[in-house]
Amino acid sequence: MPATPIDFYFDFASPYGYFAAREIDDLAARHGTHAVWRPFLLGAVFKHTGSAPNLAVPLRGAYFKRDVARIARLLDIPLVIPPSAPVRGVTASRAFYWLDGQDGALAKRFALAVYDAHWLEGRDIGQGEELAAVATALGLDPAAMAAGCDLPEIKDRLRQETDEAIARGAFGSPYCIVGDEPFWGWDRLPMLENWLAQGGW
Amino acid sequence: MPATPIDFYFDFASPYGYFAAREIDDLAARHGTHAVWRPFLLGAVFKHTGSAPNLAVPLRGAYFKRDVARIARLLDIPLVIPPSAPVRGVTASRAFYWLDGQDGALAKRFALAVYDAHWLEGRDIGQGEELAAVATALGLDPAAMAAGCDLPEIKDRLRQETDEAIARGAFGSPYCIVGDEPFWGWDRLPMLENWLAQGGW
Repeated sequence: MPATPIDFYFDFASPYGYFAAREIDDLAARHGTHAVWRPFLLGAVFKHTGSAPNLAVPLRGAYFKRDVARIARLLDIPLVIPPSAPVRGVTASRAFYWLDGQDGALAKRFALAVYDAHWLEGRDIGQGEELAAVATALGLDPAAMAAGCDLPEIKDRLRQETDEAIARGAFGSPYCIVGDEPFWGWDRLPMLENWLAQGGW
Repeated sequence: MPATPIDFYFDFASPYGYFAAREIDDLAARHGTHAVWRPFLLGAVFKHTGSAPNLAVPLRGAYFKRDVARIARLLDIPLVIPPSAPVRGVTASRAFYWLDGQDGALAKRFALAVYDAHWLEGRDIGQGEELAAVATALGLDPAAMAAGCDLPEIKDRLRQETDEAIARGAFGSPYCIVGDEPFWGWDRLPMLENWLAQGGW
């Protein structure tokens, strides 16, 4: 029986999604499987659940910044809290799916580069020119990418992925699903790994 | 310099608070310090932050049950989700503070027994008769305890502790504070331990 893949849902606005994105492929490979990267939009989730971004919730916002900084120190990642946080990940997500249709590995490299630009350099990856700069640095054609992001089928793809994420229970980022088993948060990756190692319980 | 104590805020309605309550004193002892147990009321927090109990939030409620069951399996705890969840912890919390004024160690034993009754046996510890049964099993006088819970200074104490928890940023349970450093969630206990081991960063 082939190994069950990991559906890896994440929003570019989520630093915990960033931490997970840096680890998920290696984690999957250690257990003979792979991760299917699926950016989605937490904004749509929050409408569905009546929630709000961490940064916008009293008390939680202040804690969130400390927690993220602490994890970054533990992982030795020179993270910054970008002035644009929480950023709109819609265009970056569309660009991901446009690339994914051509070259899945390249789409992942792009996603990591977008995440780095945002969480290491503090750049506003909600802006088209910042995404164009990331694309250029990867040797991609930014004009072709911008045109790809405007394709109706690409816009539909992101909408469908987001709807499916919600239908499958994803209320935060990262949200990993293996078979029917959901794992919310970077801090649940050890449990996900345990699950893969044992083939469930 | 004496070791900084751990302020351990928890709500009896919180299974993550239960997991932490079973571990926090041993964790503190390993680092030459102690935990100050401070039950508080998440209901007041939710009014302040505009949040709701996990079980009442779409998607999150379903995930929460699975996550709690999974952690219980990992820790080998025969946990049940009580029909009364999320329970009202107000009387149990008052009883804790009443006992705490007489015997801190006894108050902790009572808190753990209340937690066990709720999360292992599914009993509705929001009910006075269930709390009386827990008290009786510990050799306490349930009538004296019930009278203690009605004292104005005990009611004030719980109100003050809850207000102070919110003022210090506690938006969930468990919420541990060491000096000024907050750690939210059972899953942050390893980071808390790391913090104690290193004396900060």
